[in-house]
Amino acid sequence: MILSSFSVVTSSVLTPLLASAVGVESEFYAKALAAAVAFVTVVVFLFAQLFGELAIRLSLPAVLGELIAGFILGVSGIHCIVLGNGGEVADWTVAAVQLISGSDTTTIQEVFAGPIRILLNQYAELGVGVLLFKIGLEADLEELIKVGPQAASVAVAGVILPFVAGFVGLTSIFHLSAIASIFAAAALTATSIGITSRIMQDMGVLNTKEGQIILGAAVLDDILGIAILAVAIGIAEHGTVEISSVIGTIVSATLFVISAIVLNKVFGPRYINFLSRFSNPYSVLIGSIIFLSLMGTIANVIGLEEILGCFAAGIILGNTKATAALEKACEPLVALFATVFFVSIGAKTDLSVLNLANPESRTGLVIAAFLIVIAILGKLAAGYFVFSKENVNRLAIGTGMVPRGEVGLVFAGLGATTGTLTGSLNVAIVLMVIATTFVAPPMLRWVFASNQTVTNQEQQPVAK
Amino acid sequence: MILSSFSVVTSSVLTPLLASAVGVESEFYAKALAAAVAFVTVVVFLFAQLFGELAIRLSLPAVLGELIAGFILGVSGIHCIVLGNGGEVADWTVAAVQLISGSDTTTIQEVFAGPIRILLNQYAELGVGVLLFKIGLEADLEELIKVGPQAASVAVAGVILPFVAGFVGLTSIFHLSAIASIFAAAALTATSIGITSRIMQDMGVLNTKEGQIILGAAVLDDILGIAILAVAIGIAEHGTVEISSVIGTIVSATLFVISAIVLNKVFGPRYINFLSRFSNPYSVLIGSIIFLSLMGTIANVIGLEEILGCFAAGIILGNTKATAALEKACEPLVALFATVFFVSIGAKTDLSVLNLANPESRTGLVIAAFLIVIAILGKLAAGYFVFSKENVNRLAIGTGMVPRGEVGLVFAGLGATTGTLTGSLNVAIVLMVIATTFVAPPMLRWVFASNQTVTNQEQQPVAK
Repeated sequence: MILSSFSVVTSSVLTPLLASAVGVESEFYAKALAAAVAFVTVVVFLFAQLFGELAIRLSLPAVLGELIAGFILGVSGIHCIVLGNGGEVADWTVAAVQLISGSDTTTIQEVFAGPIRILLNQYAELGVGVLLFKIGLEADLEELIKVGPQAASVAVAGVILPFVAGFVGLTSIFHLSAIASIFAAAALTATSIGITSRIMQDMGVLNTKEGQIILGAAVLDDILGIAILAVAIGIAEHGTVEISSVIGTIVSATLFVISAIVLNKVFGPRYINFLSRFSNPYSVLIGSIIFLSLMGTIANVIGLEEILGCFAAGIILGNTKATAALEKACEPLVALFATVFFVSIGAKTDLSVLNLANPESRTGLVIAAFLIVIAILGKLAAGYFVFSKENVNRLAIGTGMVPRGEVGLVFAGLGATTGTLTGSLNVAIVLMVIATTFVAPPMLRWVFASNQTVTNQEQQPVAK
Repeated sequence: MILSSFSVVTSSVLTPLLASAVGVESEFYAKALAAAVAFVTVVVFLFAQLFGELAIRLSLPAVLGELIAGFILGVSGIHCIVLGNGGEVADWTVAAVQLISGSDTTTIQEVFAGPIRILLNQYAELGVGVLLFKIGLEADLEELIKVGPQAASVAVAGVILPFVAGFVGLTSIFHLSAIASIFAAAALTATSIGITSRIMQDMGVLNTKEGQIILGAAVLDDILGIAILAVAIGIAEHGTVEISSVIGTIVSATLFVISAIVLNKVFGPRYINFLSRFSNPYSVLIGSIIFLSLMGTIANVIGLEEILGCFAAGIILGNTKATAALEKACEPLVALFATVFFVSIGAKTDLSVLNLANPESRTGLVIAAFLIVIAILGKLAAGYFVFSKENVNRLAIGTGMVPRGEVGLVFAGLGATTGTLTGSLNVAIVLMVIATTFVAPPMLRWVFASNQTVTNQEQQPVAK
């Protein structure tokens, strides 16, 4: 993982760029970089692992623990990793790296300000890219079509209701700008397929009728959510709400997703067959990474976000003979790099804006409370849009749609970095994601306990 | 993989550092970085995959193809990725990234000079770290003890003979400095366990008696080779050959390896048991990455190279109930990041020093020829150190030890970056690694064809 001698190259590359500002000696720099990489690797994974476990033991999703690990390590906590623009890493972190490497304080601070930020941000991007690729792979289009219009109606209602209620409330009650309101309302839409399916699997209700509708709706919901994310960011980058821009983005997002669904039939299996003819057993993974990068680039060139490209790449390569093996090969990458992504979201979130002595912070908390109420009620109401004559537990379906996760956090992360969501509004979204994810498991347990259709109660403990 | 909006953070981090030298606009920088990351990802994996396949189709190890992909992409080829200090990337590469991102030429060149080099070097380090960790995991100590003293005598002879012959020849015939000669001679010692076992598996002779002795010797050889690597680099960093330093490094390397073997019994299984009690199915992988980083740091603090720490971490966690699953989880990481390592070694190697019009280059070629002869004859002779009364094909054992691979290339890479091996000597080592790896498969086929003990001829094609 860490080769100080190799880092001499890094250092000799950086030296001409940093020399004037930093004035460091090459060997010191290489040792500081190697030590800092090892230090950051250990603390990020140690905290993510411990708090992830704590969350699971409390019957909560591990991703919550990873976020909390980020809060603790980042600007809201002990300043061990500082990824945003806000300040330097803590003295004790510098001292620890100094103890290992023997480098001077200035060099270590520059290593944290430069290469470590580049590395953590790129690891986080790799993680979220592969995560959304994997979500795309898991989005089994055939299964979705089978679960049918019921899932679709829940998904559409579950996107429209919170979005409209959120947008109207934020602009009319809180008098926020249209663009900030769109972004925050968009963050209310997407159910986390990963979290929802994980929770239902843990509870053994994944194979119930309600479970299947939830899963189907969550998949479609993810597609809608990512399309809305592309729209929201497109709007944020243009600075104003232009109808032509909105329509343009919606059209290209729709075409892109439709193309992905069509390519899933006509291109995906052929590309996988082509890759399978290579001798390297990881040819399918390597070919997928190439495809992922190309799709991300194409998405970017036509004005969409790269993550939509990663997701579309997953959709296209889904449901082939190699998809299961490919998902398996992505798992270690997601386990490591998506963890960096969630920890970095926590580390970037400045909870100090929630200081109750500050009037603006109190507003932020009020906004958070509003978003949480809309987020929960919006999805519960969506559950009643199931038009089935069968005896279906509509409350359970709505409850299953409540947890926002990966996509909601992607909104928060992107909103913060594009500068659209400043201070309290960003924190409000993160709090909404945390609250919905925390509240869903006990609610699901309660509503499924009163569910007469739960016949296939297969208990699958999380522990391996 | 690539999120331009996320890259805003990277850019805003870099801006204060680079602003004076580069003077770029933040958004341009972010777009250029995203496009450059995608571009580099595509070309590195595309070329590695295609040339790896070509190598396999020619019955050669894939790693040779990855090296050649690096030659083509790097300073010896089309200058598509330039990792060393030598110059800028090719104009067409800049033009391609410009076409995707719309950024200006200067920004794109700075992105390739800064973040892309940091990223590729760190990906390469992650790759070689996990690769050596995995080699450590595979080094089954029980099996090695069973194959017994025969493997040990082959390994020791196979390390001493090429090292002494190489050192004496380089200092006496070529009048090279003692330190450069030690480094180059050390690069002659380590058989590639990965390449050797892969070749034997492809030929179906892994389960013969000769195959098992070769495997056992290759494992021990790897340990000896990495210990020698630590010594060589320790010497290189002190600049002169100090007996106390040599003894100190040998003692600490020996103690470190012995500690690893002891810890494999008393700590490894307990740590794995501890990690297995976590709910996250990838806890063992994450706990291993933490352990890997700690061991690398400890190795560094006591004066050894970090890769010895990664290897020792693998030894310690080898042969437990979770080792097979852990090896499996490491495979996608190795498939992606070790590929970056091998391609980057090729990309850094400047073959233009082998210009025959240049007298110094002709010397380099003569040194390469000398190293190749010593590398092959040294291992063939070592095969005759098997003290068995059985009818053993000693020539086959020696031939199986011929291919140098990962460790030899690690020597070349580290030698180049520490500045010990300049120009032609570094190229000579790389040519030696290539030649031994190219020559071994046909030689093995020939000597095993005349082998009466090959009874278990199980043909396992490489193709999946």
